[in-house]
Amino acid sequence: MSKQLTLYTARSCPYAQRVEIALAEVGANFTRFEVDLQNKPVWYAPQVNPASKVPAAAYGGPEVPPDQPSPESVKIAESLVLLEFVADLHPESPLLPKDPVQRAKARFFIDAISKIPSSWHAFMSRGESPDALIGSLESIQNLLSEGKEFAVGDEFTTADAAIAPFLARIATTLGNDIGVFAEGEGKKVYEAIWKSPKFVKLQKYYENVTARESFQKTWNEQLIKDRMSARFASKRAT
Amino acid sequence: MSKQLTLYTARSCPYAQRVEIALAEVGANFTRFEVDLQNKPVWYAPQVNPASKVPAAAYGGPEVPPDQPSPESVKIAESLVLLEFVADLHPESPLLPKDPVQRAKARFFIDAISKIPSSWHAFMSRGESPDALIGSLESIQNLLSEGKEFAVGDEFTTADAAIAPFLARIATTLGNDIGVFAEGEGKKVYEAIWKSPKFVKLQKYYENVTARESFQKTWNEQLIKDRMSARFASKRAT
Ligand SMILES: N[C@@H](CCC(=O)N[C@@H](CS)C(=O)NCC(=O)O)C(=O)O
Ligand SMILES: N[C@@H](CCC(=O)N[C@@H](CS)C(=O)NCC(=O)O)C(=O)O
Repeated sequence: MSKQLTLYTARSCPYAQRVEIALAEVGANFTRFEVDLQNKPVWYAPQVNPASKVPAAAYGGPEVPPDQPSPESVKIAESLVLLEFVADLHPESPLLPKDPVQRAKARFFIDAISKIPSSWHAFMSRGESPDALIGSLESIQNLLSEGKEFAVGDEFTTADAAIAPFLARIATTLGNDIGVFAEGEGKKVYEAIWKSPKFVKLQKYYENVTARESFQKTWNEQLIKDRMSARFASKRAT
Repeated sequence: MSKQLTLYTARSCPYAQRVEIALAEVGANFTRFEVDLQNKPVWYAPQVNPASKVPAAAYGGPEVPPDQPSPESVKIAESLVLLEFVADLHPESPLLPKDPVQRAKARFFIDAISKIPSSWHAFMSRGESPDALIGSLESIQNLLSEGKEFAVGDEFTTADAAIAPFLARIATTLGNDIGVFAEGEGKKVYEAIWKSPKFVKLQKYYENVTARESFQKTWNEQLIKDRMSARFASKRAT
């Protein structure tokens, strides 16, 4: 990659971690700028991403400090757009397979995981039934091929980068009983997913993606635990 | 393209038309099978698409009649996955630009139009305020570049294939006052979008995409008008 790439990101954000994983997979050289989501820099929305969200990238243009983005760089937002962009910048990498059918499978998998965030939040943040979350993880498990290490085969692809940050946050919050549900309910759902024989295929897959170096380098479990605990402290149903 | 491609589709469906437009753009050789959505063949869900929706494709495998799909072909669903698939099968075509930045722009545009269907249905099918629809079309207009023929430049891309079927159905239903809203309300919103100086950029863009041969070949206005009129007959608010 000859042009400069700056990633505006945040450790806490699962969407941003997707892109950090992809960049780690291809070994990209990039400038990382941590956006404080509680206190976003005033220049961020007008100069980087009008939607005022992370992740976003500034690509090309002159070398500038990341807090002084150049109007000459192209700004790109949306985690899934950025995953494809990273793959397009590195066509030699297996991040997105060369075979059109395998590429379609990766994209279909990514489309299928789009229901996970809302079903997770329905349970954790609104105290609704965990059934939608369990159901969405079951349908993801059904897409996994027996005996394959990753989502669409034995290579780590954009599909794995897209789901890993969510699976890890779901496991961390449920496993630590973090959410608005009554005490103990999160742990129960954690056991129903991460300890039940019904979910063995998903559990194995979870081990594979979270063991990946690109995941480990971009994941901070303690930070997620602390942030999410703080967010839900005093909101527990009694 | 050496392998066989069968598209399961339906003239009425905007998602399916996206893929038909893309196939027309690349001049693909394919077998078209019209699925009667009111009376779907029993083999369709188990043998082609478990979600029981169009569009879906069967790719590769032996040459078989489309109503006897082979277990040896790969089945691919989801219109946006299929748009990328068609582009991947025809890397020489401008359907998806070669430049990673242009590709990212096409995908960002496609992501941005994801709110259009629900905002259209909120007004047409549930009689809610048209403001969400007008707002979503305004934000699409803001993404269009002044003086460019298509969504991301002067080439017709997947971005245009993705939005054209929806714009055309919105114009047709509103223009013919089809929906659950009180008489005349659809026409008013049509005028507010298709006749107002505020939307000149969108209007010009609409002309460009709907004049395209790939659109014309895959569009049947009378059918949409008849189907939608029948669907909303007797549901008018009074
Ligand atoms: N659809 C976006 C979602 C990104 C998103 O929601 N990011 C959150 C943090 S996880 C954000 O930046 N929110 C704005 C804020 O917190 O002010 C993507 O896929 O990139
Ligand atoms: N997300 C799907 C949506 C496809 C869809 O909703 N298709 C409709 C027709 S427009 C369908 O087949 N519905 C099932 C039915 O009518 O039984 C895509 O983008 O392909």
